[in-house]
Amino acid sequence: VVAVTGGSASAAAVFTDNLVQAAPVRLSRDHLAATGSGDGSGLASGVIVTSGCANAATGAAGDSDQLAVAQRLADRLGRPAEEMLVASTGLIGTRLPVAAVGGAVATLVPDGLAATDEAFAAVATAIMTTDSRSKIASLDVTLDGADGSRPGVRIAGLGKGVGMIHPRMATLIGIVLTDARVAPAALGSMLRDAVADTYNQISVDGDTSTNDTVFLLASGAADAPEIVPGTPAADTFQAGLAAVCRSLARQHAADGEGASTLITCRVTGAADRVDARAVARAVVSSSLFKAAVHGRDPNWGRIVMAAGNGRRPDGTQVRLEVDRLSVRVAGTEVFHGEPVPFDAAPVARAMDAAEVVIELDLGVGDGVGEAWGCDLTEAYVIENSAYST
Amino acid sequence: VVAVTGGSASAAAVFTDNLVQAAPVRLSRDHLAATGSGDGSGLASGVIVTSGCANAATGAAGDSDQLAVAQRLADRLGRPAEEMLVASTGLIGTRLPVAAVGGAVATLVPDGLAATDEAFAAVATAIMTTDSRSKIASLDVTLDGADGSRPGVRIAGLGKGVGMIHPRMATLIGIVLTDARVAPAALGSMLRDAVADTYNQISVDGDTSTNDTVFLLASGAADAPEIVPGTPAADTFQAGLAAVCRSLARQHAADGEGASTLITCRVTGAADRVDARAVARAVVSSSLFKAAVHGRDPNWGRIVMAAGNGRRPDGTQVRLEVDRLSVRVAGTEVFHGEPVPFDAAPVARAMDAAEVVIELDLGVGDGVGEAWGCDLTEAYVIENSAYST
Repeated sequence: VVAVTGGSASAAAVFTDNLVQAAPVRLSRDHLAATGSGDGSGLASGVIVTSGCANAATGAAGDSDQLAVAQRLADRLGRPAEEMLVASTGLIGTRLPVAAVGGAVATLVPDGLAATDEAFAAVATAIMTTDSRSKIASLDVTLDGADGSRPGVRIAGLGKGVGMIHPRMATLIGIVLTDARVAPAALGSMLRDAVADTYNQISVDGDTSTNDTVFLLASGAADAPEIVPGTPAADTFQAGLAAVCRSLARQHAADGEGASTLITCRVTGAADRVDARAVARAVVSSSLFKAAVHGRDPNWGRIVMAAGNGRRPDGTQVRLEVDRLSVRVAGTEVFHGEPVPFDAAPVARAMDAAEVVIELDLGVGDGVGEAWGCDLTEAYVIENSAYST
Repeated sequence: VVAVTGGSASAAAVFTDNLVQAAPVRLSRDHLAATGSGDGSGLASGVIVTSGCANAATGAAGDSDQLAVAQRLADRLGRPAEEMLVASTGLIGTRLPVAAVGGAVATLVPDGLAATDEAFAAVATAIMTTDSRSKIASLDVTLDGADGSRPGVRIAGLGKGVGMIHPRMATLIGIVLTDARVAPAALGSMLRDAVADTYNQISVDGDTSTNDTVFLLASGAADAPEIVPGTPAADTFQAGLAAVCRSLARQHAADGEGASTLITCRVTGAADRVDARAVARAVVSSSLFKAAVHGRDPNWGRIVMAAGNGRRPDGTQVRLEVDRLSVRVAGTEVFHGEPVPFDAAPVARAMDAAEVVIELDLGVGDGVGEAWGCDLTEAYVIENSAYST
């Protein structure tokens, strides 16, 4: 449970674009529509995340279960139900244990609420399912005020999710909080921008979940002037928000189910940012390349193959000319229009690391982009061959 | 090597749409353009397939290597080089051993050529790389002639490829031969139709190769009347061609790297065929569902999740309403708008088979489609962690 003290906060969300949307996604969407102007942002005073049950594909019963949970939190916080945001992850197709969740809410609110770093960390730990470690990122940002003041605000995020993760709107569950003051609509725009470069650029297994949700709540508690789009303060805040989202996104990819290595792909020289993102995503999403990284095998042919499968979100081809393409694996150039002779042994040794960086220069423009994934291991298969049974 | 005796045959091809196209793909495309009217069909009198080296991402040297191989075959057959089609599969980024291939051609042509079933089977075996078994399908078709005659023609195909396989134009290497007489342009149209429902509906690992090629050659040797589009004979031939391609496509999916189970997904009740194909493909492409099949786990939540990720080739959403959706696993209904209670043990036992059939009815139209994939196993990861080294 995350509760906003002293009223409601500006709230924005990005949800999965899976056509099968879980009950918590539908309810949060409805609540933001009720408290906002219909653009995915609104007001919130409480967030409750349940894990172990996704409450997806559960029919009308799942919807009423989810509403009951939100109502229980609203009652305890003494705020309207529409100001409650909900998220759930876990097994698809099982019912939420409403009574148990309600009992937990009664225990936690208000007596268990605390405004400490430890409490924040406890939330990050409590929502873990197959995660092997909790995921937190925070940043203090100093804004340039229009009046010459330099107020400070904090941006802090947490998240869970290491499987059924593939970019396309949001992935997994993330909650980012800030004490800055931002109007709901501006907050929504800032969140969508940040998500496009971060959460939407990670892939663990190519499967987009039914429950993916990223919330951003701005309480205004720092008592700094409102951040208005188009001002230097907004640019600074946007950069800070992107940094927090990027850190969280990398943590999710690095902790991918069964994974031992974070794969980072940086693309430069693309026709535009959309192309760059698409190619980077294609590389970190390739099963064959992910398996090669697991084997510490500098098999760059699979990188070139994956890059050639890059497609923009509208299905059109990216601009890629293989005779201009350059590929570096862990710092060593291996391809530049044609194969570049290299000594495989030291490259394989450099790949035996917690993070392997792949760099592609497309040589056709100045678009840049990044994406993150993880190696494909026997452990992923074993973990996912026996999950529901 | 496949050689056409007594002149040239009508030829059509479908190639990968990976932006990185291997040298053999480029050369075959050029040759069909030179002998045809630019629509991917033309004339051919010889096909040479080399395995072990993909000749992809090899720069200008790779192009001249491939041309040298085609020229060598042309010389031996005494036909123009433009009538030679070429295909290669294997490791990306290494050079073709032109001298060795040339030597083999000298041995095989003309003395090693034979018009027997055994020779056909020998080609299917010779082109295998990571395939565990050869892939052949053939069918005798009786056509209704316009003049009341009922000529018979044969359609026979072979193929290789069990990894780096994912639908989007063609996948893998397939060669389909027929002694029917069909003009090149009509042949091209028939091949594209057949591929859309068969080869393009299989996935092993989500990676579209740089080398995928399906050739269809019609020699006219049966001395049957020419098959003209729009006639009953054309419909019969099209159905026979689709049946041969479907059989081959299923063989590829069933033999997917590391796989133990063929996954067939049948979709009915979709808004149209494009939607039906997209949803079926999404289900057989889901890493998480493929792992569940490996574990004989009737985890239908992953089927619903995967279906919700179905997208048409232009990136737009399919029409899917979860409250109308019905899902059957190995014959048992497990979801119909909401979870359907079922006994998991017998379903898990039914999944312990060489083929598992998943049926989805979307309940919104009359579009139908099929797709084929395979389970994701530890063996896939092991095989692909140590391929080039």
